[in-house]
Amino acid sequence: MTLSIHPLVGVGTVSAGDDVAAALEPALRSIGPINGDVLVVTHKIVSKAEGAVREIEGDEEAFKKALVEEIARSIVRRRGDLIIAETKHGFVCANAGVDRSNAAEGTMVLLPEDPDRSAHRIRMKLRQSLGLDLPVVISDTFGRPWRRGLTDVAIGVSGLLPILDLIGTRDWVGRELDVTEVAVADELAAAADLVMGKASGIPAALVRGYDGPRGDGKGSDLVRPVDEDLFR
Amino acid sequence: MTLSIHPLVGVGTVSAGDDVAAALEPALRSIGPINGDVLVVTHKIVSKAEGAVREIEGDEEAFKKALVEEIARSIVRRRGDLIIAETKHGFVCANAGVDRSNAAEGTMVLLPEDPDRSAHRIRMKLRQSLGLDLPVVISDTFGRPWRRGLTDVAIGVSGLLPILDLIGTRDWVGRELDVTEVAVADELAAAADLVMGKASGIPAALVRGYDGPRGDGKGSDLVRPVDEDLFR
Repeated sequence: MTLSIHPLVGVGTVSAGDDVAAALEPALRSIGPINGDVLVVTHKIVSKAEGAVREIEGDEEAFKKALVEEIARSIVRRRGDLIIAETKHGFVCANAGVDRSNAAEGTMVLLPEDPDRSAHRIRMKLRQSLGLDLPVVISDTFGRPWRRGLTDVAIGVSGLLPILDLIGTRDWVGRELDVTEVAVADELAAAADLVMGKASGIPAALVRGYDGPRGDGKGSDLVRPVDEDLFR
Repeated sequence: MTLSIHPLVGVGTVSAGDDVAAALEPALRSIGPINGDVLVVTHKIVSKAEGAVREIEGDEEAFKKALVEEIARSIVRRRGDLIIAETKHGFVCANAGVDRSNAAEGTMVLLPEDPDRSAHRIRMKLRQSLGLDLPVVISDTFGRPWRRGLTDVAIGVSGLLPILDLIGTRDWVGRELDVTEVAVADELAAAADLVMGKASGIPAALVRGYDGPRGDGKGSDLVRPVDEDLFR
């Protein structure tokens, strides 16, 4: 099955109180969504629409540091200006998700309060306006401890299972698989990032041909429980 | 720009001494590769063709543990049967890349000796047979410390830059980006995995429409230098 990934171009800026689904709808219609498509939305447009934004006061660096410390559930590592923190959602990432890129002048953007709820809301609104039930993935850009560069991952989902569970599945030589849990929502987010870029202003992409399991999954399913964590 | 990802179906099994490029070529031709396409190949077919395989002797679990300890450059963490180890290439992953899935009966598969060289070799052979210079990514499936599930990442590349460096780039509101290094080769590997699965016997995929920078990159560029590592 061939997969295709279509950027949503021409989506305007959004402000607090705007409807993300409505902002995405014209670009989505110009692609022509069909049953089975998955919509990946970068968290930034969601955060802005939800007002998950702070006005910078005083020195920008000092403000950012104080903000990260305020919103983080815990600080995992610190070196110089770099803070690796656990967000209240349980995600471990740089600066607890606080980011200035593509933020309005004088502001910083936080992660959405509840990215799964955000994904669900977008999905429900589009179901109403388009008459199609498109699973939604909300993405953000995270670093990795041992690999250079960042990749997009899923922080919220609605309408699909973020982990493909292959327990009991056999490989093509008949042996049970060693790898049994694939983080497909993260792979969808990473794939979508390839057409969105960081500087292009493209906030979403439509993935066609993904045949993984639908269902009532959550982005929080991707958070490794602390008792399985060997690196904190 | 729309991206499309095409699985290479119908590729037969390979054994030590086989030519991976020749094994992939019929499936590749049936897709019809064009200039600009990127080929993602899972490491397992490469390792098998290169003979990076060990015959299991004695108890399978004990053999595996001893093999991991033998080939690892260092052991990073250990809990029960789980060993997180650094490979000689510098990758940090479960079992130093030793894997039984999709291995021939009675064997375990290791990572290729030099995945960048493997990628280069496949690229050069296909350039000769197809008359096209397709950048090649060799992929494997790695876990992550704080996220459940595994995703495919790049362990070898030839003909493209695995990290897209955006230093100095401005976002669409004119501010310098916070995130400046995108691990695009990992995103390509993750995207390709969505059409390959773990149990399907599909060892490669062709990515069309990826417009990131070509050049003389290496999979080892994705290894974070130890002095930047906060988690070891």
